[in-house]
Amino acid sequence: MTGERKASEKMRIGELSRAAGVPVPTIKYYLREGLLPPGELSSPNQASYGEQHLRRLRLIRALVDLGQVPIAQVKTIIEGLDSKTLPLHEQIGRAHYAITRPRQLTSSSEDPAASSARAEAEAQVADLIVARGWTIHPEAPALTTLTETVAALRSLGQHQLVSFLDTYAEAVERFTELEINAVTSGTPTADAPTRTPDAIAESVVIGTVLGETLISSLRLLAQESISATRWKDTIRKK
Amino acid sequence: MTGERKASEKMRIGELSRAAGVPVPTIKYYLREGLLPPGELSSPNQASYGEQHLRRLRLIRALVDLGQVPIAQVKTIIEGLDSKTLPLHEQIGRAHYAITRPRQLTSSSEDPAASSARAEAEAQVADLIVARGWTIHPEAPALTTLTETVAALRSLGQHQLVSFLDTYAEAVERFTELEINAVTSGTPTADAPTRTPDAIAESVVIGTVLGETLISSLRLLAQESISATRWKDTIRKK
Repeated sequence: MTGERKASEKMRIGELSRAAGVPVPTIKYYLREGLLPPGELSSPNQASYGEQHLRRLRLIRALVDLGQVPIAQVKTIIEGLDSKTLPLHEQIGRAHYAITRPRQLTSSSEDPAASSARAEAEAQVADLIVARGWTIHPEAPALTTLTETVAALRSLGQHQLVSFLDTYAEAVERFTELEINAVTSGTPTADAPTRTPDAIAESVVIGTVLGETLISSLRLLAQESISATRWKDTIRKK
Repeated sequence: MTGERKASEKMRIGELSRAAGVPVPTIKYYLREGLLPPGELSSPNQASYGEQHLRRLRLIRALVDLGQVPIAQVKTIIEGLDSKTLPLHEQIGRAHYAITRPRQLTSSSEDPAASSARAEAEAQVADLIVARGWTIHPEAPALTTLTETVAALRSLGQHQLVSFLDTYAEAVERFTELEINAVTSGTPTADAPTRTPDAIAESVVIGTVLGETLISSLRLLAQESISATRWKDTIRKK
C-alpha cells in the first residue's frame, strides 16, 4: 500500500477527520463515549491523534455500517477489547449479543397447530445440538431465533427446509471451525507480524460480525447465479 | 398435527385474529394494503376468512419478525407471489432486494490506503466471481456489500479473513445448491402433496429469507460451542 501514513505521525482532529472520512462532531462523540481513546495533549487546548485512532475509527465504522451493529453495542465490544483482560470466549460472547437480538414472533397465536409446531421445533433443535455435541448456553439469543424460525417453517408447511437443518448445521460447523482457526492463528504475516492476544481478540470480533456479512452476501450471490442459470430463459425482459 | 382447523372452515375477522395471534387493526391494515386477499362477503358488512388467510398471516409475520423484512418489502414479495406469472428468477430477485439493502461505509476517507483497499477488494471479488463461474447482475446489492466488506477487512489488516473468502464462497455455493434443490424439488410430501409452481415460488421466498436466519443462528451457535470448548478454562466466573 502506497501513500500510507507513518505510524508515528501525529494528526490534529481535523486531519484525523479527513483521513478517516468521519466528521469532527462524530469523532468528538466517540471520544466522549469512550469509543475512542483520548488524544495526546500537545497544549491545554490541543490534542493530537495517531494511527491507533484512525484504525479504531475504521473499526467503528465497519461495525456500524457493514455489520449494522447499533452504536451502544459497538461500545460494549470496544470496552471488551480495551479491557485487555477479557477472555476470548467472553469477547466472542459480547460480539454475539451485539449482532443477535433474539428474533421472535410478535404474534401470540391461540392456534393449537402453532403451539405444536413450536414444541416440535424445540425438540428438533435440542436433538440437533446433542447430535452435533455442541455446548450452548440455554439463553443464547441465537437459540431463540433458531427455534422460532424452525417453528415458523413448520407452521408454514416448509418441511423441505426443516429437514435441511442438519445439512445446514454440518456445513456451517465445518466452515466456522476453519474460520476460527484462520482468525485465531498466530502465524505471523506481513501485516500482523506479532499477532498479540489483543490483535487476535480484535480479529475474532471483526470475524464474528463481518464474517456474517460476507457469508450472507456470498449466499445471495450464489443463489442469484444458480437461479439465473436454471431459470434464465424465463427471465422477464425489461 | 392435532386440533388443526379444517381448510373449509370459515372465520370472522375476530376469529382469524385469535387464530393467527395478529390484532384486528393489523389485519385490516394488511387487507387495505393488499397483503391479504379480501374475505368472502357473507353479508354487506360481514366478511369471512379461511385457511388461506391464516396461512398468509403466518407468512407475513414470519417475514417481518424472523426475517426482519420491512413491511413495504413484504408487500413487494407478496405481490410477486400473487401475480402467478412472475418467473421464479424474478421472484427470487424480489426476495433478495427485500432482504439486502446494500451496505456501504458512510464515511468517505481521503486516506490513499482506503482507496487502494477498495480497488484491491473490487479486483478480488471480480476474480472470485469469474473463478466460481457465477452469473451476477452488476447492480446486485449483495455485490456492493461483499466488496465493501472485503475492502473494510483489508483496511483493518484482517488478511486472514480476506484470504478465507474462497473457502467461504465454496462452502456457501455447495449448500446453496443443495438448499435450492430441496426447496424447488417437486417431490410430493405428506404436507405438500402437489408442489404446484405457486407452492414452489412460496418456498423459494421463504427459503431465501428464513434460510438466512437459520444459517446465521447456526453459525453463532457453532462459534459459541467451539469458543466454549477451546477457551472454556478462561471463562470468567460470574
